[in-house]
Amino acid sequence: MRATLHTLEQTIRQRRNADPSASYVAKLTTKGRAKIAQKVGEEAVETVIAAMADDRAGVIGESADLLFHLMMLLADLDIPLDAVMDELDRREGLSGIAEKAARPKD
Amino acid sequence: MRATLHTLEQTIRQRRNADPSASYVAKLTTKGRAKIAQKVGEEAVETVIAAMADDRAGVIGESADLLFHLMMLLADLDIPLDAVMDELDRREGLSGIAEKAARPKD
Amino acid sequence: MRATLHTLEQTIRQRRNADPSASYVAKLTTKGRAKIAQKVGEEAVETVIAAMADDRAGVIGESADLLFHLMMLLADLDIPLDAVMDELDRREGLSGIAEKAARPKD
Amino acid sequence: MRATLHTLEQTIRQRRNADPSASYVAKLTTKGRAKIAQKVGEEAVETVIAAMADDRAGVIGESADLLFHLMMLLADLDIPLDAVMDELDRREGLSGIAEKAARPKD
Repeated sequence: MRATLHTLEQTIRQRRNADPSASYVAKLTTKGRAKIAQKVGEEAVETVIAAMADDRAGVIGESADLLFHLMMLLADLDIPLDAVMDELDRREGLSGIAEKAARPKD
Repeated sequence: MRATLHTLEQTIRQRRNADPSASYVAKLTTKGRAKIAQKVGEEAVETVIAAMADDRAGVIGESADLLFHLMMLLADLDIPLDAVMDELDRREGLSGIAEKAARPKD
Repeated sequence: MRATLHTLEQTIRQRRNADPSASYVAKLTTKGRAKIAQKVGEEAVETVIAAMADDRAGVIGESADLLFHLMMLLADLDIPLDAVMDELDRREGLSGIAEKAARPKD
Repeated sequence: MRATLHTLEQTIRQRRNADPSASYVAKLTTKGRAKIAQKVGEEAVETVIAAMADDRAGVIGESADLLFHLMMLLADLDIPLDAVMDELDRREGLSGIAEKAARPKD
């Protein structure tokens, strides 16, 4: 079955309390929020660089890493993925013009 | 209906060729890949800062922005979301120990 | 006279308490550390993108922005530039091999 | 003698062609521009996180790493530090009000 962000969310939440010697999620979790946030920033930088280098395989791999660590950061803050999806839905349900007006800073 | 990354992917692909004066997606698309990549990096930085400030509402909003622009970057490279999800699935299907071994650099 | 990081440091420290309506430094300072840190992250992303695009003029401009906001962040933390320079000196005074050994994580 | 960015620039340019097994600069240089740019982005993220955590020693160390890798990136593009300093000088020589007007996007 194909992974979704929701299955990833469940997997990460289950592994947070696993044995740090056996699970990457548990190990990074014990290092604390700053280290998880650092990974989000680093994987975003790597995604940007792969995109600029027109490295499609690189973008796929780095985007997967970015999504993985973003889900870990949300879990560390006990923010459900659905809270983010509802926020996206709130914006994307808007019509094209309203969408633009809702993003004045961009 | 709640947004998913797949519905977001469809919406973005439809709007890329819309009127740039009426759609944020179309407008940013016309600015080119470097500008889309820049937004991915910037939103990741904002997500990191909100997380470090323990600003939960901020993390929700910035994570939504990050996912939105990551989906725009994938669309610009014509990379289907499923390619990224398959990559995540390949990793997450691994057992805890194998998971760790598959990420030697972390 | 050519600017140096030390003259920039002095200028920034003087302007932090200026009228926010007349000085960019004062205006950004009033917005707080998170906004200054955000600018450091954003200008780094723009520097990376300009470098990957082989845009030399862009790298010059974005590097200037990055240095400027890094100096603002140091000032906000009341860290003297010399503390950073001493740290660089401590590393760079090392021989080539010692230099390498001192950076095991890289 | 205290390090300056200009002495750092000289050191980096000299080491670029050194033995990669003996010099971190030579080793990273052989990995190419994307890897140098990646380090600039990563060190900026770490600087941002240390600042948000109010970790002064961390900010000093990460700022040193950021400056070091920024100088490596400039060297890789054969951009003299003075080109960046002249750009800073051009902006900072401006009066406070002109300074603000010169940064409309901020």
